[in-house]
Amino acid sequence: MDVLSVLEIDKAFDRIKPFVIKTPLVCNETINNITNARVFFKLENLQRTGSFKLRGAANKISQLTNDEKCRGIVAYSSGNHAQAVAYVASLYNISSTIVMPKNAPSIKIENTKKYGAEIIIYDSMHESREKIASEIARKETKTIIKPYDDLDVIAGQGTVGKEIAEELKLKNIQPDIYLCCCGGGGLIAGSSTYLKYAFPNIKNFAVEPEEFNDTQLSLKNNSIVKNKESAKSICDALLAPQPGNVTFPINQTTLDGGLAVSDKEVKNTIIELAEDMKIVVEPGGSVAATALLTNKISVKNKNVVVMISGGNIDYKLFSSIVRNC
Amino acid sequence: MDVLSVLEIDKAFDRIKPFVIKTPLVCNETINNITNARVFFKLENLQRTGSFKLRGAANKISQLTNDEKCRGIVAYSSGNHAQAVAYVASLYNISSTIVMPKNAPSIKIENTKKYGAEIIIYDSMHESREKIASEIARKETKTIIKPYDDLDVIAGQGTVGKEIAEELKLKNIQPDIYLCCCGGGGLIAGSSTYLKYAFPNIKNFAVEPEEFNDTQLSLKNNSIVKNKESAKSICDALLAPQPGNVTFPINQTTLDGGLAVSDKEVKNTIIELAEDMKIVVEPGGSVAATALLTNKISVKNKNVVVMISGGNIDYKLFSSIVRNC
Repeated sequence: MDVLSVLEIDKAFDRIKPFVIKTPLVCNETINNITNARVFFKLENLQRTGSFKLRGAANKISQLTNDEKCRGIVAYSSGNHAQAVAYVASLYNISSTIVMPKNAPSIKIENTKKYGAEIIIYDSMHESREKIASEIARKETKTIIKPYDDLDVIAGQGTVGKEIAEELKLKNIQPDIYLCCCGGGGLIAGSSTYLKYAFPNIKNFAVEPEEFNDTQLSLKNNSIVKNKESAKSICDALLAPQPGNVTFPINQTTLDGGLAVSDKEVKNTIIELAEDMKIVVEPGGSVAATALLTNKISVKNKNVVVMISGGNIDYKLFSSIVRNC
Repeated sequence: MDVLSVLEIDKAFDRIKPFVIKTPLVCNETINNITNARVFFKLENLQRTGSFKLRGAANKISQLTNDEKCRGIVAYSSGNHAQAVAYVASLYNISSTIVMPKNAPSIKIENTKKYGAEIIIYDSMHESREKIASEIARKETKTIIKPYDDLDVIAGQGTVGKEIAEELKLKNIQPDIYLCCCGGGGLIAGSSTYLKYAFPNIKNFAVEPEEFNDTQLSLKNNSIVKNKESAKSICDALLAPQPGNVTFPINQTTLDGGLAVSDKEVKNTIIELAEDMKIVVEPGGSVAATALLTNKISVKNKNVVVMISGGNIDYKLFSSIVRNC
C-alpha cells in the first residue's frame, strides 16, 4: 500500500504556493440556523481554474524534470483536472494534451482550450480514456498526469485540508465532522489525512451521487466495489467508475463512512447555495453541502466542515435548474 | 456640514463586530488578465443578509437607547437596508416596520419578512416612502433608521473600507483606484473616507446606472443634481432620486469623479462574475465591476479595489439574464 504522509502535504503546500490562492472558509448564518450546526464552507469554487484540482496538478507538474517538461504532458479528465493541468502547463510553457469526454460541460472544454491545451475528445460510452492517453504518452514520450491515483496529486489536494486546519486552529475551533465529495477519491484522501492528523477526533465522510456510491459501498465491503455501468448523474466531476487503487487504501484509514445524494437533491442545493450564500457551485462541487442540507447525517450542535470543490457549471444548466425549481 | 471622522468608523468597527462577518477580498486571475490590472474584489454579497447594509444598520441600531429599542424602529428601503434593519432588530427583539416598494425584488421582501419585520408595501410612482415612514414613526413613536443620510449609518458602511485597508496593508499593497457603487451614497462616503485616510493617493470613483448618475453630475456641478423622474434601471438598489444631503458633502471631499454604466453592461457583468468568479451578484452590486470590465476608466498596471456590494437577486431574473446572453 502506498502511504500518504502529512509531511508530503506540508511539502506540497510550500511547493504550490505560487500557483494557488488561499480560498475563503466561510460561515453562513441562514445555513447554521437551518442545520442547528456551525458550518464552515471551504470555497474551492473560488480557486483559480474554478476547482481544487489545481492543487494536485501544480504539485505534480512542478516536480517534473526539465526533460519531462520539454517532452510535454497528457491527462484525461471530465474537465476540472483538465483545466488545472492545462493551466499549470501554460505557466511552465509545457505542451499539454487533454483527453476529454464529448459530453463534458462546454465551460470546461472551452476553458481548457483557453489555457492552450490540445484537446482530444472521446466517447466515454465506447472508448477508454486511459488507453487513449497511454497511447499518446507512449507515442509522444509524454508524461501522464493522473487525475487522482498518484500520491503527488493526492498530496496536492491535501493542502486544502491543511488550509482548513490552520484557519480553524487560529479560531480555536475543533471540527467534529468533515463532508467532502468523492469521485476517484483524491481530494478526500489528501484532505481527510490532514484533518485527521490535525484533529484526531474528526469524523470524515465521503459524499457521492447515489448511483456512483462506490466508495460508500467499498468502505462497507472492505474491498473495492465498482459502480454499475448504467449509473447516471448530473455530477460530471464525480463519475469515476470505482475507487482508485491508490486513493482507496488511504480512504479506508481516514474515512468514517460514505453518504449518497440524488440529482434532485443536488439541484435544490445548487439553488440554495446561490440564494443563501451567493455562490455558483457545480453539481459535483455541491454534493457535500447536499448531504448536509438533506440531513444525511446528524450535525446538531456540531462544528461541520463542508467542501465546496468546484464551480464550473454550464450557465445553461444553471439557468435551467433555477427555472425549473 | 456634517463631518465623518475616521475615528467614528473605528468605533463603528468595534461596535458592529458581533453582527457582521469579515468578508473575503479576492483576486481573480482571469479578470486580472482581461484588465491588465491587479483587481481586489470585496465580496459584501457574502455578508450576512446578502449585502453591506448590515454594517450601517448594526452601527445605528446598537446605539439606540433602551427606551428607543422598546418603542421599535421603522425604515424604508428597496430591500437591502430593509433586510439589514429587520435582521438587527430581530437579534435585539426590537419590533420593526419596513416600508418597501411594491416592485422590490421578491427575494428581498421574503427575507425581510423572514427576519420578522412588518412590511408596508407602497407604490413608488405615486407615494413618498419618507412620508409613510414619518407618519408611522410619529404615530407609533418609533425611531426611523435612514438608509444613508445619517452619520452613524455612513460610519457603519465605512467599516468595509477599514477591512479593505487593513488587508491591503498586511499584503503591503497600495491601491490606486477604488470603484464603488453609489445610490444614496452612504457606502461610498464611508468607505472612501477610510480608504483616502489609509491611502492618501487613492482615486475614489462612484459608479452609477446611467440614468441614475446624479452623483456623477452633482460632483461635476458642485451642487446636488436630481435624476429625471423617468429614469429607469434594473439596479433596484441604486434608485435614490438624488445624492443625500449628508452623504454628498462627504463624497465631494473624498471622490475623484463618477462613472456610469448601462443595464446591458450590468447584465453582461453579472454573467461574467458568475462564470469567472463563481459568485452571485445583484444588479446594483455589480456596477463597480461593470465599470471595470467595460473600461470606463483606465486601470492598466494599477491596483484596483472593486466593491461587490450585494447578492440579493431574484433567481428568475438571474436565470433570464443567463438565458438571454
